[in-house]
Amino acid sequence: MSIPQTNFSPPFNITRASHLVLTARDLAKSRAFYTEVIGLMVSDEDADTIHLRGVEERCHHSLTLKRTSGAPTCERLGFRVFTDEDLDKAKRYFDRQGIAAAWAEVPFQGRTLHVCDSVGTPLEFCARMKTQPRTQTRVHTHRGAGALRMDHYQVLAPDVPAAAKFYTDLGFRVSDFICVDGVERLVGVFMYRKNNPHDMVFLARSGPRYHHCGYMVQEFHHMVRACDVAGNLGFGEAIEHGPGRHGLGHSYYTYLRDPDGHRTELLLPAVQMIDIDEEPVRHGVRPNVNTNLWGLPAPRSWVEETTPFAGVEITGQGTDSARMTLESWLAARQPVERSGEPAMAGPGQKPA
Amino acid sequence: MSIPQTNFSPPFNITRASHLVLTARDLAKSRAFYTEVIGLMVSDEDADTIHLRGVEERCHHSLTLKRTSGAPTCERLGFRVFTDEDLDKAKRYFDRQGIAAAWAEVPFQGRTLHVCDSVGTPLEFCARMKTQPRTQTRVHTHRGAGALRMDHYQVLAPDVPAAAKFYTDLGFRVSDFICVDGVERLVGVFMYRKNNPHDMVFLARSGPRYHHCGYMVQEFHHMVRACDVAGNLGFGEAIEHGPGRHGLGHSYYTYLRDPDGHRTELLLPAVQMIDIDEEPVRHGVRPNVNTNLWGLPAPRSWVEETTPFAGVEITGQGTDSARMTLESWLAARQPVERSGEPAMAGPGQKPA
Amino acid sequence: MSIPQTNFSPPFNITRASHLVLTARDLAKSRAFYTEVIGLMVSDEDADTIHLRGVEERCHHSLTLKRTSGAPTCERLGFRVFTDEDLDKAKRYFDRQGIAAAWAEVPFQGRTLHVCDSVGTPLEFCARMKTQPRTQTRVHTHRGAGALRMDHYQVLAPDVPAAAKFYTDLGFRVSDFICVDGVERLVGVFMYRKNNPHDMVFLARSGPRYHHCGYMVQEFHHMVRACDVAGNLGFGEAIEHGPGRHGLGHSYYTYLRDPDGHRTELLLPAVQMIDIDEEPVRHGVRPNVNTNLWGLPAPRSWVEETTPFAGVEITGQGTDSARMTLESWLAARQPVERSGEPAMAGPGQKPA
Amino acid sequence: MSIPQTNFSPPFNITRASHLVLTARDLAKSRAFYTEVIGLMVSDEDADTIHLRGVEERCHHSLTLKRTSGAPTCERLGFRVFTDEDLDKAKRYFDRQGIAAAWAEVPFQGRTLHVCDSVGTPLEFCARMKTQPRTQTRVHTHRGAGALRMDHYQVLAPDVPAAAKFYTDLGFRVSDFICVDGVERLVGVFMYRKNNPHDMVFLARSGPRYHHCGYMVQEFHHMVRACDVAGNLGFGEAIEHGPGRHGLGHSYYTYLRDPDGHRTELLLPAVQMIDIDEEPVRHGVRPNVNTNLWGLPAPRSWVEETTPFAGVEITGQGTDSARMTLESWLAARQPVERSGEPAMAGPGQKPA
Repeated sequence: MSIPQTNFSPPFNITRASHLVLTARDLAKSRAFYTEVIGLMVSDEDADTIHLRGVEERCHHSLTLKRTSGAPTCERLGFRVFTDEDLDKAKRYFDRQGIAAAWAEVPFQGRTLHVCDSVGTPLEFCARMKTQPRTQTRVHTHRGAGALRMDHYQVLAPDVPAAAKFYTDLGFRVSDFICVDGVERLVGVFMYRKNNPHDMVFLARSGPRYHHCGYMVQEFHHMVRACDVAGNLGFGEAIEHGPGRHGLGHSYYTYLRDPDGHRTELLLPAVQMIDIDEEPVRHGVRPNVNTNLWGLPAPRSWVEETTPFAGVEITGQGTDSARMTLESWLAARQPVERSGEPAMAGPGQKPA
Repeated sequence: MSIPQTNFSPPFNITRASHLVLTARDLAKSRAFYTEVIGLMVSDEDADTIHLRGVEERCHHSLTLKRTSGAPTCERLGFRVFTDEDLDKAKRYFDRQGIAAAWAEVPFQGRTLHVCDSVGTPLEFCARMKTQPRTQTRVHTHRGAGALRMDHYQVLAPDVPAAAKFYTDLGFRVSDFICVDGVERLVGVFMYRKNNPHDMVFLARSGPRYHHCGYMVQEFHHMVRACDVAGNLGFGEAIEHGPGRHGLGHSYYTYLRDPDGHRTELLLPAVQMIDIDEEPVRHGVRPNVNTNLWGLPAPRSWVEETTPFAGVEITGQGTDSARMTLESWLAARQPVERSGEPAMAGPGQKPA
Repeated sequence: MSIPQTNFSPPFNITRASHLVLTARDLAKSRAFYTEVIGLMVSDEDADTIHLRGVEERCHHSLTLKRTSGAPTCERLGFRVFTDEDLDKAKRYFDRQGIAAAWAEVPFQGRTLHVCDSVGTPLEFCARMKTQPRTQTRVHTHRGAGALRMDHYQVLAPDVPAAAKFYTDLGFRVSDFICVDGVERLVGVFMYRKNNPHDMVFLARSGPRYHHCGYMVQEFHHMVRACDVAGNLGFGEAIEHGPGRHGLGHSYYTYLRDPDGHRTELLLPAVQMIDIDEEPVRHGVRPNVNTNLWGLPAPRSWVEETTPFAGVEITGQGTDSARMTLESWLAARQPVERSGEPAMAGPGQKPA
Repeated sequence: MSIPQTNFSPPFNITRASHLVLTARDLAKSRAFYTEVIGLMVSDEDADTIHLRGVEERCHHSLTLKRTSGAPTCERLGFRVFTDEDLDKAKRYFDRQGIAAAWAEVPFQGRTLHVCDSVGTPLEFCARMKTQPRTQTRVHTHRGAGALRMDHYQVLAPDVPAAAKFYTDLGFRVSDFICVDGVERLVGVFMYRKNNPHDMVFLARSGPRYHHCGYMVQEFHHMVRACDVAGNLGFGEAIEHGPGRHGLGHSYYTYLRDPDGHRTELLLPAVQMIDIDEEPVRHGVRPNVNTNLWGLPAPRSWVEETTPFAGVEITGQGTDSARMTLESWLAARQPVERSGEPAMAGPGQKPA
């Protein structure tokens, strides 16, 4: 099976996934979730907007929350380009490609370019942002998971090869890809610009829909602290999946849902990925197999529930096939048959 | 609701839950599980028996595995008494009570007394065992969770008050008890002799049946290492429940099943419990509530699957009411209804 | 070499080291140290006194700080007895022995008995104290190390055998003892009543002088957090020794000095010690050997600086021999001689 | 004070510090140190050479040990360039600059170019290396610290500005630099190509001399495990400095010396550093100040002992001024004077 090839001389220099904008119906509640459980710092806030960053981030914000009275959405996923010159190159590139790209004014950011990718995901690029001192050593100020930095996005889209081509044309490399054994259909792709396996991940499903962003934490016990704090502060139901360890993607994970259902993954610093001789790794999936190294399969909510992108039409609903979920996996587990005295409840047997 | 009262001048001095005997159909496979995943040390072994201990234990064995060609069972739960004199006092006590108690020869142990408790659980008492050097600082020899020491037992029995009375008469104190809100029926009791909340735990269900023993690990990352190793060595399915944090009982937990289905809990060192002015804590339970501080409810297997005690009849099956399980909890979760544009898949909504 | 023998039928039942009283010259500063760095909770406070407890403690206080305008002292080391009846037995015992023992009124405590041990250490005994809810699962309220509970005391005294006899007569068991190789002089003794190796430790040196108390933390990263917080809040110099791992005594340690120089050890939950067949372990020491499994030797301040007991005369100063310190150990390290080209700075050589 | 400016259009594309070559007098002993304590994996070995890599590394080796019968040296520090074309560009660049550069054959590597930097450090560049599967999730095979990957080098050289210019001309960015307060002399520079603060660090001192390389570990407890294992396996003296937390450079650290005195730093994954608007951070140093957030100052051995580069002359010895060491810092600490009864040993006072 072929996957899109990386353009190693990209038209402009994207450096990393960097910041996103979500809308929220109750800013105070969302603020509590992100500062007390995830452990983000507030850089600036007013009555309608909160700018947040991880404790090690020098950039002004990696997450912007905007008040909404409607349905919560993801407004936009942001990437950094290296210099302002790259922004001009980007504009010219999109113009040449016939892709609508428009300059935007965004508070605390330098010049910002808005564009949608090939499957409709609303993106923005900027080279500069107001800076803040890092606070990762100021441990007495840390709360909850003390999340370090925003790392990556995951988006659902019906045409993964088309989505992947947009990014590989812009210089993204593929670290891992998932295809269905036998069929050789590309159903997942992990792509990166910075030195780890993921800036942008697509999974095959109706979309585009925003699935989650990932924040790094320093150690596993920071995830545990987030869970403990969530349990104490009334956010216990926010823990949707985990802690566990991915089979693909390598890291430990915990997924949490914010008060509007927006999903955040906490994960540990990932492997380094830089060298040219590291080829993309293929992962074949088979139906009804838990791909985690350990930990239960993801629940149905993780598989099906997402955040819509603001004003973006979702297509491909008819193509969503059934996927294994925690629910279906539990239902399929037959009680283990074991030999033994039939009159007794043995291990793996229900008492008669 | 009244719970059995502790006899603070007990007829003999039991000091702690200390050692148990399980049977196994494939000793080599069980050995791999307990040494590589749980991290126990082998003290002695021959073709039919393996004696294992935690890395900090000076006693010769806390777990004995015996080969069986039949159905796997739990042969006996062991407790230490303080001195050999206590054994004689115990024998006289049980004789006076009309409870059959018999001396037994057990390898590597001093004089050993066999008896069954009021609900039929086979027990043994001894004061002395061959000693071994502790190895908790010899970290280069540790494997998997590097389990420190055996801590407690959990047994299912239909008549929890009767079970509790047997032990409180012997000086056990109650740290926590569980009763059904409104009904005030005692459905769980945590009892202890050593300085933490649990040597012996009973939950109300047909029985007596052996549910699990708990081994302490030093830190949470030792649990994680056990999970990672289990996932690598083909014991991934052994992880039945967790990691998570109990709401009652306070500690972090992970439950694993050995190749015969016998269940081990890994937990962290528990709170200290010594003072006379610490009253038993009542926990009311309501139906369909996840009592964990965080972590999913226990799956059906955890609720229903157990190990029979060798040769002991199980009673009370008719009384086993439905209990909440992970399966029933997931089924009861209604997709969260949220406002928003009906044409779009919002957070908490399935795509139409 | 003989060590004092435990009286296994003690005149009354001491259960554990439980609470102590220190004086402080600047209560606000000490409060900041104990709550932000050590992570204790304030149970009660007024203008002149602060009562503190660890996050898992149900007892009202394990540390009481009293304002002083003089030199800071340790007023008293407290132990729990099991019941009020034990207090009466204690009073009769001390009266019989001709040891002055007096009833005292202490806020938040039940009846309290004051007495000095055989080397002059001021002690108090009580059976009851006001209780508080445990907060070890309320992680969002934890600060610094989130210390769990007070565990043990270390006292310096010139006559260790005499000190040890006082406690073994009261039922304390010896877990470990230290003697000088060849000379067979008892220079250290670790004694316990609860189920771990230390409630009361004596080391041979002029005294009696208070050396430190130990607070348990749950995991190593809690020690690291305490260090990080100390470094941030201006208490960086408070970290006197560690983190490291004891060779004797088994646990990881970090020693910190409060604003008055009173010393606290943070340590991890220790090994369990209950069985009668665990004999005391002898540790021979030789001069100029670092007894840690890893970590530098203790600095001179740790060896020499202590807190006086209020109003208690110190004797034995003339007998204090030189002990190895970090300073003497560093001075004794000869630069490692290695072969090689003499014109070059090799590993272990200073550049010429 | 001015620091060398980064050339953002470098003549060729260096991607990261990647691999180094050390010589060893006892390969078996060094093998034990690196595999059991540091936790590296052996990729290949023969009678005279061992190739080692971190558990997450896909490259064949990050550390090569070669048997020597002479004095142990560092033969060469390696960097990756992105493609083979970059190697040709590099050769042309060095030729133009009049810097001797020669092709070399190195086992398991693609084409390799040898060159010395402006202060005499022997370097090599390659674009390709045999690949290996990552093993970071195969936890049951991990030993000691389970080191993840080689991260950076530290070199001593008398002319730090000259050293820095060589690398900034090749596109290295400066994350942090150290200068002496008042004097404004550049005495340290941290430079990077990959997405964290350090690939190459220079400190001002006679040289060039190899000071250490840094290996990342996943969590703090991996450092602790390395220390525990070192203490058990006779490498206790190998722990030279730490664990502690840098004030500059941000991470936790432990420095260990291998059997030949070569120094390895274990550290945690560092902050991410990518954006153009992150300016180099200036750190002013003053004499006799411990710059750590916590942890003792580095001992004299850390300051003075190094590994020579094979066949490279050391200059600047006359310029090495005294630096604060643990030894000088301890000597300068005056016993803290405190008020109080003069006849008693108060905290901070030696007993009279």
